[in-house]
Amino acid sequence: MTYQDIRQSLAQIIFETDTRLGRVYDIGLIVVITLSVSIAMLDSIKVIHDKYEHELWTVEWALTALFTLDYIVRLACARRPWRYARSFYGMIDLLSVIPTYLSRLVPGSQYLATIRFLRVLRIFRVLNLSTYQRELQYLRQALLASRRRIATFLFFVLTVVVVLGGLMYTIEYDTENPSEGFSSIPRSIYWAIVTLTTVGYGDISPKTNLGQAVASLIMILGYSIIVIPTGIIASSIPKPHTSDGNRTCAQCQDNTHDADAVFCKQCGQKLQQIV
Amino acid sequence: MTYQDIRQSLAQIIFETDTRLGRVYDIGLIVVITLSVSIAMLDSIKVIHDKYEHELWTVEWALTALFTLDYIVRLACARRPWRYARSFYGMIDLLSVIPTYLSRLVPGSQYLATIRFLRVLRIFRVLNLSTYQRELQYLRQALLASRRRIATFLFFVLTVVVVLGGLMYTIEYDTENPSEGFSSIPRSIYWAIVTLTTVGYGDISPKTNLGQAVASLIMILGYSIIVIPTGIIASSIPKPHTSDGNRTCAQCQDNTHDADAVFCKQCGQKLQQIV
Amino acid sequence: MTYQDIRQSLAQIIFETDTRLGRVYDIGLIVVITLSVSIAMLDSIKVIHDKYEHELWTVEWALTALFTLDYIVRLACARRPWRYARSFYGMIDLLSVIPTYLSRLVPGSQYLATIRFLRVLRIFRVLNLSTYQRELQYLRQALLASRRRIATFLFFVLTVVVVLGGLMYTIEYDTENPSEGFSSIPRSIYWAIVTLTTVGYGDISPKTNLGQAVASLIMILGYSIIVIPTGIIASSIPKPHTSDGNRTCAQCQDNTHDADAVFCKQCGQKLQQIV
Amino acid sequence: MTYQDIRQSLAQIIFETDTRLGRVYDIGLIVVITLSVSIAMLDSIKVIHDKYEHELWTVEWALTALFTLDYIVRLACARRPWRYARSFYGMIDLLSVIPTYLSRLVPGSQYLATIRFLRVLRIFRVLNLSTYQRELQYLRQALLASRRRIATFLFFVLTVVVVLGGLMYTIEYDTENPSEGFSSIPRSIYWAIVTLTTVGYGDISPKTNLGQAVASLIMILGYSIIVIPTGIIASSIPKPHTSDGNRTCAQCQDNTHDADAVFCKQCGQKLQQIV
Repeated sequence: MTYQDIRQSLAQIIFETDTRLGRVYDIGLIVVITLSVSIAMLDSIKVIHDKYEHELWTVEWALTALFTLDYIVRLACARRPWRYARSFYGMIDLLSVIPTYLSRLVPGSQYLATIRFLRVLRIFRVLNLSTYQRELQYLRQALLASRRRIATFLFFVLTVVVVLGGLMYTIEYDTENPSEGFSSIPRSIYWAIVTLTTVGYGDISPKTNLGQAVASLIMILGYSIIVIPTGIIASSIPKPHTSDGNRTCAQCQDNTHDADAVFCKQCGQKLQQIV
Repeated sequence: MTYQDIRQSLAQIIFETDTRLGRVYDIGLIVVITLSVSIAMLDSIKVIHDKYEHELWTVEWALTALFTLDYIVRLACARRPWRYARSFYGMIDLLSVIPTYLSRLVPGSQYLATIRFLRVLRIFRVLNLSTYQRELQYLRQALLASRRRIATFLFFVLTVVVVLGGLMYTIEYDTENPSEGFSSIPRSIYWAIVTLTTVGYGDISPKTNLGQAVASLIMILGYSIIVIPTGIIASSIPKPHTSDGNRTCAQCQDNTHDADAVFCKQCGQKLQQIV
Repeated sequence: MTYQDIRQSLAQIIFETDTRLGRVYDIGLIVVITLSVSIAMLDSIKVIHDKYEHELWTVEWALTALFTLDYIVRLACARRPWRYARSFYGMIDLLSVIPTYLSRLVPGSQYLATIRFLRVLRIFRVLNLSTYQRELQYLRQALLASRRRIATFLFFVLTVVVVLGGLMYTIEYDTENPSEGFSSIPRSIYWAIVTLTTVGYGDISPKTNLGQAVASLIMILGYSIIVIPTGIIASSIPKPHTSDGNRTCAQCQDNTHDADAVFCKQCGQKLQQIV
Repeated sequence: MTYQDIRQSLAQIIFETDTRLGRVYDIGLIVVITLSVSIAMLDSIKVIHDKYEHELWTVEWALTALFTLDYIVRLACARRPWRYARSFYGMIDLLSVIPTYLSRLVPGSQYLATIRFLRVLRIFRVLNLSTYQRELQYLRQALLASRRRIATFLFFVLTVVVVLGGLMYTIEYDTENPSEGFSSIPRSIYWAIVTLTTVGYGDISPKTNLGQAVASLIMILGYSIIVIPTGIIASSIPKPHTSDGNRTCAQCQDNTHDADAVFCKQCGQKLQQIV
């Protein structure tokens, strides 16, 4: 067996899910990732951290070594290593191993390892859930179809929150408690975003009468502003095909016809009319 | 009268609503359930609990005995007892009696008896509100038709909140107040969910500048993410049928005419007028 | 001039807006109502109340006398007094005068006089804003068309919040601070409603790990539940007719044709096709 | 070169973006505006203000002088100066220079300079992003098409919050803490708006049992009320054109075919395929 053969076999196992070994590898990986993310979560709970710090640390490094090996093998096996490295999953794979190494320099950064969980999105491919993948595809298309609208909208929101931030800071800045509430324009912008998205923590809220009046206006008008993307995205999502009430073409069995269709859109056969 | 006859008569009274006795039984049951849930509510108010503990306790046990009897009779009468036991309402019926018995072992669990209220959903069947049942049916169909999309979406949200939880924990963890705010990754995930759903209690909110900046990004982008199910479900709900707008053209069978249409928009044929 | 003549003339002035006097009367009424509501608002501000209590009190009673007179004359003039009294505006007119009289028995109830502001909804009729009235009509139709769905939905929400209320009370009841947070099932139900509608005050929020986990589930699933009425109502609202891009019928000038219309729905004339 | 020639050349540079100089001028302006807004933001942060007050003050005045000059030249060059002054951007340009001058009279008002950021909305014109401008156009049309509906709705919301404000003030006014919570009707109206828009800060929240019960009703019903504009605006937004789906049938001109259609659903004619 030549080096090329090994590389090809490995590529088949690691990148593909058609073979038995390929599926086993991917499922194993998902288990290990879930384990690794669980460890990061447990490690962040003080009681557990104080008691099992050493054990968790050991497992964490062992798993990171595994992920590093996986990344190196992927790079070595990929037909176009550079293209893999720049792909969405390629970058996730790289970002998955960095936090643990980084924690040697910047303590605490190991918790960023939760980014590994993004790798589990591959689960759809592994489980061969083609219908689920089609749904993801739909959502992606819906977002892509309205990306210009979303960009325009985000820029518009940015402008609105900057202007509102300046306005509310001028009204609400409290010279007696300069470090509380609307203490600076950036913090006022944070308030404007918290309000416009209707999250409304209440950590910063207007205290003066004028401030509350302006905030009321912002909420009512802002509600209309922030609600626009709902319409944008909602109207771009293709309707799921319901099986009930749909006519089936007698010739090709296609049953995704519109209510006003006269002919089958797949084979041109005349459809039974709705009475 | 044989045992089989009695069984059949009982089944007719308990499971069906066509006969007079059957309706009386179901309405009586709904009254008793509402009473029982009201008692659990009253019992949870300290002032009332301290004063009428004994009386409430007696009524609670009497009603539970009734519900237990009802469940046993249902099991005995059902044509396929096992199928009933595993059905949605069968499990609700069982869960309705468990909390009171459980409260002997685990004090406080009797308040879970509010689950009984789910039995009242049968009210639609009892009152023979077929149109209401059709509405429930519509909603169920709408949810079923988009169940894959919802599952994909929930998995995607899970991934997002886990990654954001790790990120915000790293940024916001306060070594001086380790038990407050973003005290662990699970708590940060709780914060991420509270924020993405725009509930925004404010019990946990970012304090640092970087944390507030990242939270702002999460809110604006997150708003778009969480808004997707709105579109999914909203677009799957069948339009309610308004009485004016179902006219079918006598010539071409087109039935998508506006309410103010006089002529068929597809073939120009005069339409039947709405009186 | 007979009594009947006077009655008819008054009815024309008070109930109709076609004559000059009728319009003057209605506009005058709206001014007086707005004044009266403003006085109730000012009276509720402590600083103003302490200083001008007597003056505000005098004007309030003078205006109430006016409204009472208006109501009596309306009853006397109406062709069918009983029908007027039971109508939506008839009941509002009655409710508008009650609070001030009630305040002699129950101090503080005069602030309910803000209900008078509902009378101003007549402004649409007064200003002869037929297009605005058509919009209100549209909204009413949309709500009526989906009233069964809304009723079913509200009953479903009621069931859900009762069950969740019992569940969260069992989990979160704090024996050490029995009067705080989830202190009773009714208060837990209040929390469930605050959470499901995404209002999220934060006056009550889960403190235990299990409580936060369950609350997270409720939020994500609940978001889907509460979002349904959006879809229901949104999908029932008729689209506003945009003038641009719509083909105009050469014969009758109607320009509200659907994109797929071939013939004018108003006069049957063939429409110019979209190329 | 006459005065007219100079005026025309300047107008071309300042108002248009076709020439190279015109683009350079506009991009330069955007850079300066962003710089100026950033300075206002930095100046509002106490630590930075205390240290660099003088430097920030100098730059601020220099930039304001620039903007003033820009505004004067625009007025002088515009073909119809008065029309420019009254236009949307003309008023923004004026409002951009006022705050700094005003700060000599009213200290603190210089922070309103963030309104300058609205000028950056011109970026779409400068970058010749015609597709983005078309999106903005779409959104404006959608808002215009439903402006009557929005006005009717806002008036309706105003009525609702005034009535609810009076109601909740009567229920929740606390004679022992008159300055907290629902301390006046205007403040109750503020609470009603915060609640109906689902922002829910929690700075004001009902404490009494009756108040919480009424608030629960308001939330559930209010959710339906406030959700209406979502439907209004969402249903008015034209769907984004996806590149695949605009095929027109060569025989019957129908252009509402699904992306996967092979034959015309109206006449059975074969459709041009998407490559």
